[in-house]
Amino acid sequence: MSRIPVTVLGATGVVGQKFVRRLVDHPLFEIRHLTASDRNVGKRYAEGCAWHVTEGEPYLGLGDRILQPSTPDAAFSPVVFSALDTAPAREIEPLFAQAGALVFSNAAAFRMDSDVPLLVPEVNAAHLDLVRFQRANRGWSGGIVTNPNCTVTVLTMALAPLQAAFGIEAIHMTSMQAVSGAGYPGVSSLDILGSVIPFIRNEEAKVEEEAPKLLGTFAGACIDPARVGVSAHCNRVPVIEGHTESVSVRLKGDPSPEAVAEVMRAWNPLAGLGLPSAPAVPIHVHDAEDRPQVRKDVGRDGGMSVHVGRIRRCALFGIKFTVLGSNTERGAAGCSVLNAELAIMRDLLAREI
Amino acid sequence: MSRIPVTVLGATGVVGQKFVRRLVDHPLFEIRHLTASDRNVGKRYAEGCAWHVTEGEPYLGLGDRILQPSTPDAAFSPVVFSALDTAPAREIEPLFAQAGALVFSNAAAFRMDSDVPLLVPEVNAAHLDLVRFQRANRGWSGGIVTNPNCTVTVLTMALAPLQAAFGIEAIHMTSMQAVSGAGYPGVSSLDILGSVIPFIRNEEAKVEEEAPKLLGTFAGACIDPARVGVSAHCNRVPVIEGHTESVSVRLKGDPSPEAVAEVMRAWNPLAGLGLPSAPAVPIHVHDAEDRPQVRKDVGRDGGMSVHVGRIRRCALFGIKFTVLGSNTERGAAGCSVLNAELAIMRDLLAREI
Amino acid sequence: MSRIPVTVLGATGVVGQKFVRRLVDHPLFEIRHLTASDRNVGKRYAEGCAWHVTEGEPYLGLGDRILQPSTPDAAFSPVVFSALDTAPAREIEPLFAQAGALVFSNAAAFRMDSDVPLLVPEVNAAHLDLVRFQRANRGWSGGIVTNPNCTVTVLTMALAPLQAAFGIEAIHMTSMQAVSGAGYPGVSSLDILGSVIPFIRNEEAKVEEEAPKLLGTFAGACIDPARVGVSAHCNRVPVIEGHTESVSVRLKGDPSPEAVAEVMRAWNPLAGLGLPSAPAVPIHVHDAEDRPQVRKDVGRDGGMSVHVGRIRRCALFGIKFTVLGSNTERGAAGCSVLNAELAIMRDLLAREI
Amino acid sequence: MSRIPVTVLGATGVVGQKFVRRLVDHPLFEIRHLTASDRNVGKRYAEGCAWHVTEGEPYLGLGDRILQPSTPDAAFSPVVFSALDTAPAREIEPLFAQAGALVFSNAAAFRMDSDVPLLVPEVNAAHLDLVRFQRANRGWSGGIVTNPNCTVTVLTMALAPLQAAFGIEAIHMTSMQAVSGAGYPGVSSLDILGSVIPFIRNEEAKVEEEAPKLLGTFAGACIDPARVGVSAHCNRVPVIEGHTESVSVRLKGDPSPEAVAEVMRAWNPLAGLGLPSAPAVPIHVHDAEDRPQVRKDVGRDGGMSVHVGRIRRCALFGIKFTVLGSNTERGAAGCSVLNAELAIMRDLLAREI
Repeated sequence: MSRIPVTVLGATGVVGQKFVRRLVDHPLFEIRHLTASDRNVGKRYAEGCAWHVTEGEPYLGLGDRILQPSTPDAAFSPVVFSALDTAPAREIEPLFAQAGALVFSNAAAFRMDSDVPLLVPEVNAAHLDLVRFQRANRGWSGGIVTNPNCTVTVLTMALAPLQAAFGIEAIHMTSMQAVSGAGYPGVSSLDILGSVIPFIRNEEAKVEEEAPKLLGTFAGACIDPARVGVSAHCNRVPVIEGHTESVSVRLKGDPSPEAVAEVMRAWNPLAGLGLPSAPAVPIHVHDAEDRPQVRKDVGRDGGMSVHVGRIRRCALFGIKFTVLGSNTERGAAGCSVLNAELAIMRDLLAREI
Repeated sequence: MSRIPVTVLGATGVVGQKFVRRLVDHPLFEIRHLTASDRNVGKRYAEGCAWHVTEGEPYLGLGDRILQPSTPDAAFSPVVFSALDTAPAREIEPLFAQAGALVFSNAAAFRMDSDVPLLVPEVNAAHLDLVRFQRANRGWSGGIVTNPNCTVTVLTMALAPLQAAFGIEAIHMTSMQAVSGAGYPGVSSLDILGSVIPFIRNEEAKVEEEAPKLLGTFAGACIDPARVGVSAHCNRVPVIEGHTESVSVRLKGDPSPEAVAEVMRAWNPLAGLGLPSAPAVPIHVHDAEDRPQVRKDVGRDGGMSVHVGRIRRCALFGIKFTVLGSNTERGAAGCSVLNAELAIMRDLLAREI
Repeated sequence: MSRIPVTVLGATGVVGQKFVRRLVDHPLFEIRHLTASDRNVGKRYAEGCAWHVTEGEPYLGLGDRILQPSTPDAAFSPVVFSALDTAPAREIEPLFAQAGALVFSNAAAFRMDSDVPLLVPEVNAAHLDLVRFQRANRGWSGGIVTNPNCTVTVLTMALAPLQAAFGIEAIHMTSMQAVSGAGYPGVSSLDILGSVIPFIRNEEAKVEEEAPKLLGTFAGACIDPARVGVSAHCNRVPVIEGHTESVSVRLKGDPSPEAVAEVMRAWNPLAGLGLPSAPAVPIHVHDAEDRPQVRKDVGRDGGMSVHVGRIRRCALFGIKFTVLGSNTERGAAGCSVLNAELAIMRDLLAREI
Repeated sequence: MSRIPVTVLGATGVVGQKFVRRLVDHPLFEIRHLTASDRNVGKRYAEGCAWHVTEGEPYLGLGDRILQPSTPDAAFSPVVFSALDTAPAREIEPLFAQAGALVFSNAAAFRMDSDVPLLVPEVNAAHLDLVRFQRANRGWSGGIVTNPNCTVTVLTMALAPLQAAFGIEAIHMTSMQAVSGAGYPGVSSLDILGSVIPFIRNEEAKVEEEAPKLLGTFAGACIDPARVGVSAHCNRVPVIEGHTESVSVRLKGDPSPEAVAEVMRAWNPLAGLGLPSAPAVPIHVHDAEDRPQVRKDVGRDGGMSVHVGRIRRCALFGIKFTVLGSNTERGAAGCSVLNAELAIMRDLLAREI
């Protein structure tokens, strides 16, 4: 079977490069177009970006590809992955959706729109059906499917089995986030070497609004958000890749730490579906008292699993634990690619492809 | 007036060295003895330790002092500062107290004893009077006064004005702690470079038990602990000096962030007492949205003030903010020295000195 | 064909774990014994060490293996890999050699012995024949083959093609070395975070004495060392894995930087031999003006290749460049395993196996 | 005596802020004007820059000063300190010199001009007299005095006593430089966390051309550069402040390491002159085998002294050692201020002031 041609919008940034790495040898997809912003259009890929992927050779054999403008005329494919920033995403992604492409977007622009799926396949695969309403609403033959903010993705991977098994009433999360989340050049070394920055613009608001949508239920034409209080503190720490999150959570029925661990270990909603990017074990539950640790754990399973440890009693919420996940893989490019794999399996590509 | 001779117990470690730096030019105190564990007794101070203080010349002119054993016979002074570890502190500090010394201890050994003050002068100066009951209880002419765990000290500095002005109902704190808190050699670089360790042994329990005692009220012969729920997540980050804490707090009457900031700015319970180590401003309240930052802020006022920023609404607790303070200065040696200054002012030295 | 059983001496340390990772799925070798020092003998592998390998699952499926004592009686295999420290290596490795094992050692104990090969297969494969003289000299049926100090290995990988093509007269090298080279716990975070330590015990002497032996010629029963002046400055920097070296070199005939680059690119002495651990390209010559960079480049080819960049004129030596390589892979475990592969191919195993 | 009014050109950057810190309480100088580039002119100082100085309160009491344009009309003072980048410095500094100001510049623009002093007072105070020729040549009543590149300043502080006592024939230097040398935002954290960048644009050329001028002799109307070969490797490491340099040097007469150390310890050419910014000891010679270390040593003497350690035999050059110094203090702002103090003492201010 021939592979589906895909476009990567904004292929030159940190997340764009992660898309390229995930797609260059993908069994279902084949990279047709790489796009860039105006000042890099027409350049070779190797000229248009500082390369940040450390696996494989630089540019992964695509260094000579010519960067295209981010328009459907120049760079249409039936499946599009978007690593655009929020503002250009708001303009550009609908053009591709209207032209018939299914856009899998890492941008924040449409995440909270009522007819746009905010999707992590293990967490809320049912939400993908919102695309059918989106098409009706907007008159598009394609559509837009978003993945959440990286911090939220990691968080909800740990919370989804608890929501399913017990029900969640309140979530308190303090993050220690990697600098790769800010892109390149992103965070200045003068600000972060040997330090902590207790602020990431818009990040706490994203956690607090996206988590209830993700944990919510598909209610016909929209999502009924989970009725759960969420409070987030977001911090930047001198780590390259991987967000560590200290989570306190109030669950219905006040289950024990052992019950929580058991539910997390047993959770594997994508088992047997054969999605190429789905990790065999979505949550690794660590027994060692000092794990997970970002440098030692974040690279397992290509960054697609998350790591939970220190599940214990919380005097205020009942349960607390640490969760760790890759922000650019599971929290960005990898999630979008997995979303696309789910959409292909669900036969959501526009008919005319 | 002549200065009071003092002994530093465990002068070779990270905190012991900070004691030495604070005492070497102190207007009230004069270093008489430096003690060490058996393998270093009899050595010159410069031979007995790797020097970690970065201000001034190495060993601060005391490199030729001979290290003494940690016994009252060898190293008595009327005022003693203890940088011992918990286990030796439990044996050694009472010997000095019985011999008539007032021991200001950074160790955890006696902090939670009902007749031992756990003291931060700005927070709970009234607790110092417990020493009189301790002397009666134990038949000591001296006594033991402890300072809290470093994380708790920084936390309660920010909370004390809120307890006084509003009353606190619940405290949730996630720390990002510096490696100097683990002493030397302490944390291996292989574990912490570019990483986060979500575990510090016993640290969360200390926060959860010491904070209510500190925020409690002096009730005659003991402390009535504050009736406040406390939950802590303690993390190690690649920072040399300075603990950053993300705090959520539930206050009576649900005051606004502006009211909280105003109370913190106005708070200065030691103003006018003339204690040499008291900072002019105990809490610096930052307006910049991305402060406090440990590398940029922790060194102000010799590390004796704390820094609060990002005071804002919390969906779960009402108020959240970030507090930063020096773990080895305000959180250890500096707090003990300030405790001693307060005790001198309160005329608590044993009579026979 | 069945795989050759192997023993890893000192399997619990940083380098020992790297041996295990390289051997666990090796086409020629099969792990039979893992040994440890006395305090860990009898424990399960997972209990006997803090795990540092970040690829794959912790302990790689060998967590239940029982750690053996480092004696031929308890842990003989025909091929032995030694990650012992120098002092125990001096005692233990000869016992295995005498018992008939071919010991591939990362330790410094025997590197400079006149009848012991100091081997990097791409650099001086001919030196391996010293083993035959060693057997005669010492009456061993096995033997000892050492790999060099990690810094020297990386350095000589870059220099070997220049020695072959031009001849080297003088080498000046300044290293910036990773903390993993010091083992675990090794370098304290208090010493290295945000800092540089301009000293690594014995390291400069090793560079200055091992490099001439490696670049020397096999002269019958011994190695005629290269007549080349060597001076080294060795520094520790806050990097986890990978040594960066600033090299100035005086070559016969004063070739141009372009000629040097061409010789390095063309160099591939193991091409076609089919050694499983040999990298397809031993030296990657970078054109980008700011490469190689340790975080971005050191992981290529499983750490078995080295990276050279910034080849340019030197006002004092003629040529200068930067070379980067993995200290625990190419500079330690990987080199020993490659040495063993070469020895198997050369049919050097003791007859009685 | 009233203080001399001064202007800081480019007061908003990392070095500009260091000028402000050094001048805000200076006994000879008083800050009159702070200038900025166009987009910040007219703003308050506190609005016009991200503050990087960690000593004292933010903005040091000058937060309300209005930023001026960098023109003599708007911001003339008899003494001017320039933290401008090279390109604007080339345009702006001559305007101030022509208007009668003595400009002390940290910029590279005029350093190698034959009639411009490249000055480190301890190293080559005699070169300051070039200003008189400069005035004659250019018809200026003021003048321009430059300080060297930070790496060169630290290097020549260590070499000047050796040039005076023995004579230097060749210098080989490999630097490990702090990120503050690149300004703000400067080096991206994604490039430098846990890594080394073996390239700093133009840095090696500056070292190789500035060092001979600094170590040269004043020959009437110009400087006769030292006849010394220089080769530099410049690397960036994850350090905030302080350049560490591994130096090999060939000296006439091949003195011993002990003789070199003795000459360095005895060297103090500014002793007794009473220059406020001159350190009491310009070179601290360390005996400990693992010093100097940037985090532990760079802050002494306000960053105005340099630290030398590990003086030992070099197989190729005769002597090798490590030198460490502050790049933004001794290597930039502090050196310029010391230059100005020397010029005042030498009565070099334009008459009309």
